[in-house]
Amino acid sequence: MEKLKFINGGVTAPMGFTAQGVCASIKPSNTTKRDLAMIYCEKPCNAAAVFTKNLVKSSTIIVSKKHLENGIAQAVIVNSGNANACNADGIEIAEAMCKLASEALNVNADDVIVASTGVIGQPLPLEPVKKGVEALKGTLSKEGGSNAAEAIMTTDTIKKEWAVETVLGGKKVIIGGIAKGSGMIHINMGTTLSFVTTDAAISSEMLSEALKESVEVSYNMVSVDGDTSTNDTLAIMASGLAGNEMICTKNEDYKTFVEVLTVAFKEVAKKLARDGEGATKLLICKVDGAKDYKSAVTISKSIICSSLVKAAMFGADANCGRILCAVGYSGADVDVNKIDVSYKSAKGEILVCKDGLGLCFDEDKAKKILLENEIEILVSLGDGNGSAEAYGCDLTYDYVKINGDYRT
Amino acid sequence: MEKLKFINGGVTAPMGFTAQGVCASIKPSNTTKRDLAMIYCEKPCNAAAVFTKNLVKSSTIIVSKKHLENGIAQAVIVNSGNANACNADGIEIAEAMCKLASEALNVNADDVIVASTGVIGQPLPLEPVKKGVEALKGTLSKEGGSNAAEAIMTTDTIKKEWAVETVLGGKKVIIGGIAKGSGMIHINMGTTLSFVTTDAAISSEMLSEALKESVEVSYNMVSVDGDTSTNDTLAIMASGLAGNEMICTKNEDYKTFVEVLTVAFKEVAKKLARDGEGATKLLICKVDGAKDYKSAVTISKSIICSSLVKAAMFGADANCGRILCAVGYSGADVDVNKIDVSYKSAKGEILVCKDGLGLCFDEDKAKKILLENEIEILVSLGDGNGSAEAYGCDLTYDYVKINGDYRT
Repeated sequence: MEKLKFINGGVTAPMGFTAQGVCASIKPSNTTKRDLAMIYCEKPCNAAAVFTKNLVKSSTIIVSKKHLENGIAQAVIVNSGNANACNADGIEIAEAMCKLASEALNVNADDVIVASTGVIGQPLPLEPVKKGVEALKGTLSKEGGSNAAEAIMTTDTIKKEWAVETVLGGKKVIIGGIAKGSGMIHINMGTTLSFVTTDAAISSEMLSEALKESVEVSYNMVSVDGDTSTNDTLAIMASGLAGNEMICTKNEDYKTFVEVLTVAFKEVAKKLARDGEGATKLLICKVDGAKDYKSAVTISKSIICSSLVKAAMFGADANCGRILCAVGYSGADVDVNKIDVSYKSAKGEILVCKDGLGLCFDEDKAKKILLENEIEILVSLGDGNGSAEAYGCDLTYDYVKINGDYRT
Repeated sequence: MEKLKFINGGVTAPMGFTAQGVCASIKPSNTTKRDLAMIYCEKPCNAAAVFTKNLVKSSTIIVSKKHLENGIAQAVIVNSGNANACNADGIEIAEAMCKLASEALNVNADDVIVASTGVIGQPLPLEPVKKGVEALKGTLSKEGGSNAAEAIMTTDTIKKEWAVETVLGGKKVIIGGIAKGSGMIHINMGTTLSFVTTDAAISSEMLSEALKESVEVSYNMVSVDGDTSTNDTLAIMASGLAGNEMICTKNEDYKTFVEVLTVAFKEVAKKLARDGEGATKLLICKVDGAKDYKSAVTISKSIICSSLVKAAMFGADANCGRILCAVGYSGADVDVNKIDVSYKSAKGEILVCKDGLGLCFDEDKAKKILLENEIEILVSLGDGNGSAEAYGCDLTYDYVKINGDYRT
């Protein structure tokens, strides 16, 4: 897509935004890793967010939802190391975090978005947050964006930040973001913690619509372990400083904005899946020829979520039975006698199943293809025009290791 | 329950049945493990079965369904090492297996139930089956039941056979069975390969009803990895040789029969879960106080299927967040402020969450409880009278190892 150029930077790339991350020792045992971040805009922004659909929610989600009711936000405060979920004083603490940010940044407390990620059901102490905000105060900068990206990481092994440049109504516009993922990433509205900023002028209603559209085919198509977090938050803030004509309807500029956001979010989705807990491979499952779009989504998700498919991919085992099986129990209506399955990577492509029947194939070639760290699982159903793409990762010893004793 | 006594034996414990298992080298690389079995009754039996709901099915299921249309069966032929699924000549091979059994046992080929388990999408060669049947011929005996149980094992580490004695209409009646499980065991009608025999006199219609009722709360409540096999078959044959009055309606004897079958099947369910691929622990999730039965089923299954819960149990980590999270995304309607969670084992019981809030608990005590190999996860919802029990296992390094290269 020529409309879009990936550029360096993250959440501070758009005009008006600064950020910073510090080590606040939210977990007393953490004395080195940054775990508290703030993002700030020099002016109040139009804003929108999507949150987890889990009934068990972090208190931060209840508070952030309330603060976003008027569609305005000017800052974000976010910690890792503690999810602030299932705690008696959770709401109180979340509100207190907003107040600390509001005082440090001289913004309205109701214009602060708060988010947390980490262990559930353990009280989040306010003292380290206080000290952290004290340390953050006056240090927010363009360069600090990267530290903010680091501060939201939990079991992530790679810092996730991105920025893209596009043109809206003749004006250069930048969108940037940071994200954390790794485990507990599942296909349900608003996975992971993600904060997105832009200098585009766009109403909060249109931001909300744009989020929904782009999340649908990106974040909502990622699964690492099938579990849906209590804390998933994806918030976007638009400063309007690019000076483009304010997007208030679903006009051409809106469409471009959604298109750019979708391309960027799909890249983030791949980053999240590739960095899934313990993952050694990114799996991209492309389904076409399904009865309809919904069936394609159901089938691609069923494959990407199958523990047996994920374990087979870890072992570079071109087992077509695992794929067929996951298609068969997905719940989607398929003609099982028309299913073709191929594996593809930088090392080539190999057909392992034709018309629902397993083929004799070159095992050496298949092994070579599957030993790569980015694998496409291609499923053709010959049954219609529905297509979809889902993102996941392999299931490894390290996933078990990471989650066998997560709290310590 | 006094109505029932577990006794020694398996599929040959009831009057009229003999069985045997041999090594037929279905996989050429297998030269020692028994992989072909036959079960035989001296007279035609009333019979019924439940099968996988996966759209991608082994050819054996299509053939067995057809053979059971008249509710009569006299023999079973079953192999491990190859699933006979997604093969061009699958139906032909499954019919040929029935014919081989019919000739060896002098029964009608239409009265033979056929089943296979193993790798999907690789042709099942008939030659080893022929040789195997030749070896089986004339060797079926009461003592051979145990060899049949061995012959259906794949990645199972423990042979699964059982028998119970009860009284129906004043007559002693025996029910026996063999089962294989391990991986790919999921909550959908008719999980695993299981063959059940009885000398009770009961119509095939009532057998079918009894299977459905008892499977619902036993086999259908087990999950090892969330994947549903293409080959799941649970067949039951009744010789009627116990001489009780034929059960043709849902009378008291029928109720006793279902009750006994249910107790036995729940024990099998636990055996299947405990021997899940790579498992070191049996997990039993008991949910009560749910809005209704359906909600309780949904929630208990959601917990038992969560990779994060399973990994935490492997690590003996009393993480209540994993449980709350799985309750919250289950899809069932719950009041998140009323959820209590406890862990229980032979070493005691500990409350880790009260009214949806994480508690400070004795970590040493929790660890001691969770280091046992049979763990109960107790969830009280305080919201109604719905209760349910689901069976699963922990997620371990060995699960990944076993499934990383299943085909070799």
